[in-house]
Amino acid sequence: MIDGQTALFGFIAHPARHSRSPRMHNLSFDYWGLNARYLAFDVAPDGLAGTLAGIRSMGIAGVNLSMPFKQTVVPLLDGLTVRAQRIQAVNTIKNEAGKLIGDSTDGAGVFQDLLHQGLNLVDKHVMVLGAGGAGKAIIAAALDYGVASVTVFKRNNERYAGVQHWLEQLSTTTSVPLRLCAYEDQVRMQQVARTSNLIINATNIGMTTAGMPLPISIIQQLVPQQTVYDVIYQPLETTFLRLARQQGCATYNGLGMLIWQGALAFEFWTGKQMPVQQVRQDMLASIQATPPITAQA
Amino acid sequence: MIDGQTALFGFIAHPARHSRSPRMHNLSFDYWGLNARYLAFDVAPDGLAGTLAGIRSMGIAGVNLSMPFKQTVVPLLDGLTVRAQRIQAVNTIKNEAGKLIGDSTDGAGVFQDLLHQGLNLVDKHVMVLGAGGAGKAIIAAALDYGVASVTVFKRNNERYAGVQHWLEQLSTTTSVPLRLCAYEDQVRMQQVARTSNLIINATNIGMTTAGMPLPISIIQQLVPQQTVYDVIYQPLETTFLRLARQQGCATYNGLGMLIWQGALAFEFWTGKQMPVQQVRQDMLASIQATPPITAQA
Repeated sequence: MIDGQTALFGFIAHPARHSRSPRMHNLSFDYWGLNARYLAFDVAPDGLAGTLAGIRSMGIAGVNLSMPFKQTVVPLLDGLTVRAQRIQAVNTIKNEAGKLIGDSTDGAGVFQDLLHQGLNLVDKHVMVLGAGGAGKAIIAAALDYGVASVTVFKRNNERYAGVQHWLEQLSTTTSVPLRLCAYEDQVRMQQVARTSNLIINATNIGMTTAGMPLPISIIQQLVPQQTVYDVIYQPLETTFLRLARQQGCATYNGLGMLIWQGALAFEFWTGKQMPVQQVRQDMLASIQATPPITAQA
Repeated sequence: MIDGQTALFGFIAHPARHSRSPRMHNLSFDYWGLNARYLAFDVAPDGLAGTLAGIRSMGIAGVNLSMPFKQTVVPLLDGLTVRAQRIQAVNTIKNEAGKLIGDSTDGAGVFQDLLHQGLNLVDKHVMVLGAGGAGKAIIAAALDYGVASVTVFKRNNERYAGVQHWLEQLSTTTSVPLRLCAYEDQVRMQQVARTSNLIINATNIGMTTAGMPLPISIIQQLVPQQTVYDVIYQPLETTFLRLARQQGCATYNGLGMLIWQGALAFEFWTGKQMPVQQVRQDMLASIQATPPITAQA
């Protein structure tokens, strides 16, 4: 029951109204009996400064952010957690008595999910496909989970040198080897795929088409000892995941990442654990009730 | 159930967390099955501009305002309803596709309440005690309900001339006689009290003490044909109302004003009627569950 004391949390993005985060967080507030509510706000691209002013003035307790605000919000905040500093991007803000502190929980969401699925991450070789927002968050978060190495494949386009530079900067803060390879170098790709314990698709390939982020010839060489993760959760099983599963690999879709980035935000805000199993069941029911995303022309 | 589509309404004031408006509006949203929620926001006095920026940027659908923002918000809005223009004060904002329109429903709340209690207001002589925010709202709203005259008593202090000037301006827009008298002029007060059909206390005298806005000698001359209204609702029956009731007058406390200012805001936002009887029962239960306000030293 909402009353005058109810705290507000929110989701800030454009578009935003499709978000399932309100379900996830309101279910968790109810679970703990917290007097708080979480709503979604569709904010136009030029509306970020006004939104931050509103968060400060109205005492909104915390927000998640998504596109197109994850990077542009950084200079408007009062502080960043270490993992947000590493990628200069933020998906979670906590209002600490008027100070807005930014965190990034997307990348850690993948590894929290895998840990809770029983996977041991220590000394594992990780291959990341893609170095956009999700890819960078995952690469940076990997450093907190004791992995042996991270090898990143991305297209050799105008952003390649920038990612190379970013990885070099990041390397100065860690003893974990970080390497960047061109997506077009299939010989290298085949070699890294064979020697990686965990392969993560951080591109959107497979979301709206049956395309795959690795060539089928490489997928068909995967073995059951390897783990394959896809950040996509709609469809719940991409072609990439299905083929990897048929090779005997343990496979995970992005639903766990979605839930765990939320769980880490919830903990950042409230100090409490999200009831992940209940949230997962609710999310699954919600996703299965939604028509599949179809390919765009 | 909140989802990504849920619209947000709010209460903006300082202090704000005591407000019962969230109960009232959320009950009404539920009654109509509207996907909307109403929360309270405690905004520091210097936080109004940031709050307005947030309302615009986040697409907050509407807010109520109370102290200290009812007048300072006026220059920040895109438009005012006629009744808000008259008093240059706003307790309700509607976000019409990015345009913020201010309305004032406090004064009309009194008369809507009386109409729905069965009182005929046409050609009635009205006496208003006090010309602060509530008093001015009631004076201005009276013009919309066909009354014969409005006579206002206020203390002869530094704001007296300003109220006189405001009433003169208001007089140019209406044929209803508007008169201002000094609170200290008890001869005049006795005469007006005797000839008024409706006497409204718009001061806070009687809220935290047993004081009365009219001398007891004048109250003891009231007759059963007169109606007495007190904007105070905590306590539900002030000493003033109790003595007037003992004279046989019909008496009404400010709970109806509170509810009807909300009902008019609800209608302004949604086009729908508030379920006033259900809201009244809920408000009464809420007020009776609260310890009485005690006199401050």
